[in-house]
Amino acid sequence: MSPHPPLTPQSVRDAHQRIEKYIHRTPILTSETLSALASTPQNGTQLLGTPWEGCQPAHPRMNLFFKAENFQRVGAFKARGAFHSLSRLSREQLKHGVITNSSGNHAQALALAAKTFGVPAFIIMPRISLQAKIEATKEYGANVIFSGSTSQEREETMNKVMQETGATFVPPYDHPNTILGQGTMGIEAMDQIDEILQLKEAKVGYAQGSVTKTYEEKQELNAIIAPCGGGGMLSGLAIAAAETNIKIFGAEPCFQGANDAEIGLKQGRRIDRVETLTIADGLRTPLGKITWSVISDPSKVHGMYSVSEDQIRAAMKLVLERMKIMIEPSAAVSLAVVVFNESFRKLVEEQSRGKAWNVCVILSGGNTSVEAIAALFQSSTG
Amino acid sequence: MSPHPPLTPQSVRDAHQRIEKYIHRTPILTSETLSALASTPQNGTQLLGTPWEGCQPAHPRMNLFFKAENFQRVGAFKARGAFHSLSRLSREQLKHGVITNSSGNHAQALALAAKTFGVPAFIIMPRISLQAKIEATKEYGANVIFSGSTSQEREETMNKVMQETGATFVPPYDHPNTILGQGTMGIEAMDQIDEILQLKEAKVGYAQGSVTKTYEEKQELNAIIAPCGGGGMLSGLAIAAAETNIKIFGAEPCFQGANDAEIGLKQGRRIDRVETLTIADGLRTPLGKITWSVISDPSKVHGMYSVSEDQIRAAMKLVLERMKIMIEPSAAVSLAVVVFNESFRKLVEEQSRGKAWNVCVILSGGNTSVEAIAALFQSSTG
Repeated sequence: MSPHPPLTPQSVRDAHQRIEKYIHRTPILTSETLSALASTPQNGTQLLGTPWEGCQPAHPRMNLFFKAENFQRVGAFKARGAFHSLSRLSREQLKHGVITNSSGNHAQALALAAKTFGVPAFIIMPRISLQAKIEATKEYGANVIFSGSTSQEREETMNKVMQETGATFVPPYDHPNTILGQGTMGIEAMDQIDEILQLKEAKVGYAQGSVTKTYEEKQELNAIIAPCGGGGMLSGLAIAAAETNIKIFGAEPCFQGANDAEIGLKQGRRIDRVETLTIADGLRTPLGKITWSVISDPSKVHGMYSVSEDQIRAAMKLVLERMKIMIEPSAAVSLAVVVFNESFRKLVEEQSRGKAWNVCVILSGGNTSVEAIAALFQSSTG
Repeated sequence: MSPHPPLTPQSVRDAHQRIEKYIHRTPILTSETLSALASTPQNGTQLLGTPWEGCQPAHPRMNLFFKAENFQRVGAFKARGAFHSLSRLSREQLKHGVITNSSGNHAQALALAAKTFGVPAFIIMPRISLQAKIEATKEYGANVIFSGSTSQEREETMNKVMQETGATFVPPYDHPNTILGQGTMGIEAMDQIDEILQLKEAKVGYAQGSVTKTYEEKQELNAIIAPCGGGGMLSGLAIAAAETNIKIFGAEPCFQGANDAEIGLKQGRRIDRVETLTIADGLRTPLGKITWSVISDPSKVHGMYSVSEDQIRAAMKLVLERMKIMIEPSAAVSLAVVVFNESFRKLVEEQSRGKAWNVCVILSGGNTSVEAIAALFQSSTG
C-alpha cells in the first residue's frame, strides 16, 4: 500500500478504520448557555465580565456542537495523526523507530503511538523545555534528546540522530499521513452530530404529527470551525468534508501575526515564518506547503478568522466555568471566533438566511496546568 | 402524601422518580491513571510534584468510578435536593414560594427549582457576598435579600421575610426531603456502575470461555466515598445504599476543625459549631441533627476520613489536569482521601483481602472560577 494516500474523503475514512482501535471516539458536547451566547452580538465591555446577564438570543441563531478532543488520548487530537503515521510505516521502517522535533502534544502522541507499536521514539527537544513537558514525554517511554533552541540547532541534532538510528521522521502537520489522521475527527463529528440532529428531527415530527413537516424541518450540520496553527487538523477536516455541503472555517490568534493563514490568503502567498508569543501556544507555527495548498483552496476552506488574546482568554473562561471541562488556550480559539468575531457573525447571517445554523466547534486539546491557568487569569494585583 | 417520608431506600427511589425529569443523569467517568495512583501509597514529597513518574500499582488495588455531579444542573448535586423539596410542597405552600439563607450552590439550586415550578424564591445573602454569586442567583430569577453577616442577623432577616411572604423554608441539608433528594445520585451511581461492571464481567467470561469462571469473577461496587459538610449528601447516599453490602465513607478537610463529623464520632457527640476557612468552602458547616443521626449510625456510614489543604489542592489538580474536567475544591476532598489518607488505605487493605476494590468517588460540583483557581495555585513568587 502506498505510504502517501491521496488527500480524499475516502483516504480519511481509511485512516479512521486503521486507527479507531487505538484512539477514543471523543464525545460531542452541547451547551444551551454557550449557544445562546454565540447567537448574541458581543461588545468589548462584556469580554471579561461575568455573567452575560439578560443575554437575549438574536439572529443568526447558532447551535454549537463541541467535539471534545481534550478527552482524546494524550489529551489532544495529535494522537490521531501519530497513530495513523505509525500504521502507514513498513515493517522495515518501524524497526528503526520514529523521530520528531516537536516539544508539544505531537511529541507525546508520537511517543504513545511508538510505545503501542513496540518501536522506539526519539524526541528532539530544546534543552530549555519545561521540565513537565520533558517528564510527560519520557513517561510515555520516549528517548528525549536535547538540542539548542534555534530551529537550525534542532534540525542538526535531528539529522544526526536519524543517521545514527535510521528512524523515520514523523512531521507534526505537513505530511499526508498526519493530515489524514487528524481528519478522522471530522468523520466522527459528522456522524455523531447527524445522529443528534436526527433525534431532534424525530421529536419535531412527533410533536407536530406530520411526516411532511419533519422533512421540511430537516436539520444538518452546516459548518465546522477549528483552530489553525500548522494547519494539519484544519486541512484534515476540509478533506473529510470535501464531498458535503458543510462549510469549513479556520480560527487563529491575531497576536504578533499568528494569523499567518488569514494574512497569507489576503496576500495570495504562503507566509513561511511566524514569530509570536500568543497564549495559544499550539498555534505559533506557520502553515506548511501541503496544508497551505489545502487551506488556500476556496472550495475546501471557506474562511479564516482571527481573535485577540483577551477574546481567547474569555472563550477559555467560558468553557472552563460553564461547560466544566478543561481545555488549553489553543483549543479556545474557535469558540472565540464564534462568540466574538463580527465578520464571522456577518458571514453566518448571510449564509444562514434566518435559519438556525448548526456549527461544530473543535476543542482541540486539554493539556494545560493549574499553574498555567493561574498565570493566565491571576488578577494584576495578585 | 406525607411531606416527610421515612429515611429508607424506597423513599430515595421515590424521590428519584419525582425529580428525574428535572435533573441530569450525570455520567460515571473512569481514569486508569487515577486508579493506578490511588493504588499506590503516596508520600509527602510527591504531593504537589508532577508527574507521578514510575508509579507502580501496589495492593490494595482500587478501581475508581467518578460520579460527575459537576455536570449536574446549576453545576452541583444541590439541584437534586432542591427539586425534591419543591416536589413535596402542597399547592398552597408553593403559592407563597420558598426561602433559604444559603449563599452557595443551594441558593442557585433553589432558585432554579422555584423558577421551574413557577413560584417565587427568596434568598437571604449577607451584604458582603461576592458579586458573582449574587448575580448568578439573580440570573435564575430569585429575589435576593441582603442581611448582615452574622448567622443571627441572617436568621432575623429570614424570619421577617417569611412572615411577610408566607414562604416555606427549604434547608440546605438538615431536612428529610433534602437528604432523600441528594441520595438519588446514589441510586443512579449504583445502577450505572453495575452496568459497567457487568460489561467487564462479560468480557472476562468471553476471554476464558467459561460460564463458571464468569460467575467467580463477579464484580460489584464495594464502596462510595463522598465529601461531608452539613452531611445531606452523605446521609442520602447512606440511606440509598442501606440494603446493600456497599460501604459508605465520608471525607472532610481537617483544617481548623472542619472535620467536625470525624471528631464528633470520636467524642460520641455532635459538634454543632465549626469555624474554618478551609478552601473546600462548601464543607465549612457542621452536621445537622438529622444528618448526625444518620452519619453516627455505624450500620449506615462506615468511616469518616480527613485530609489537609495541600492534599485537597493536589487532588483537585489531578482531576483538572488528568481527567480534564472542572471541579470545585469541595469536590476534590473524597479523591484526596482515596489517594492520600493512609488510614483509609489500611482499611481498604483489610476489607478487600487482596482483591481489587471498586470505589465510587463523588465529585460533588464544579462551581469555581478561573480566578479562584489562580488564587489557589499561583506560585508564591507570582
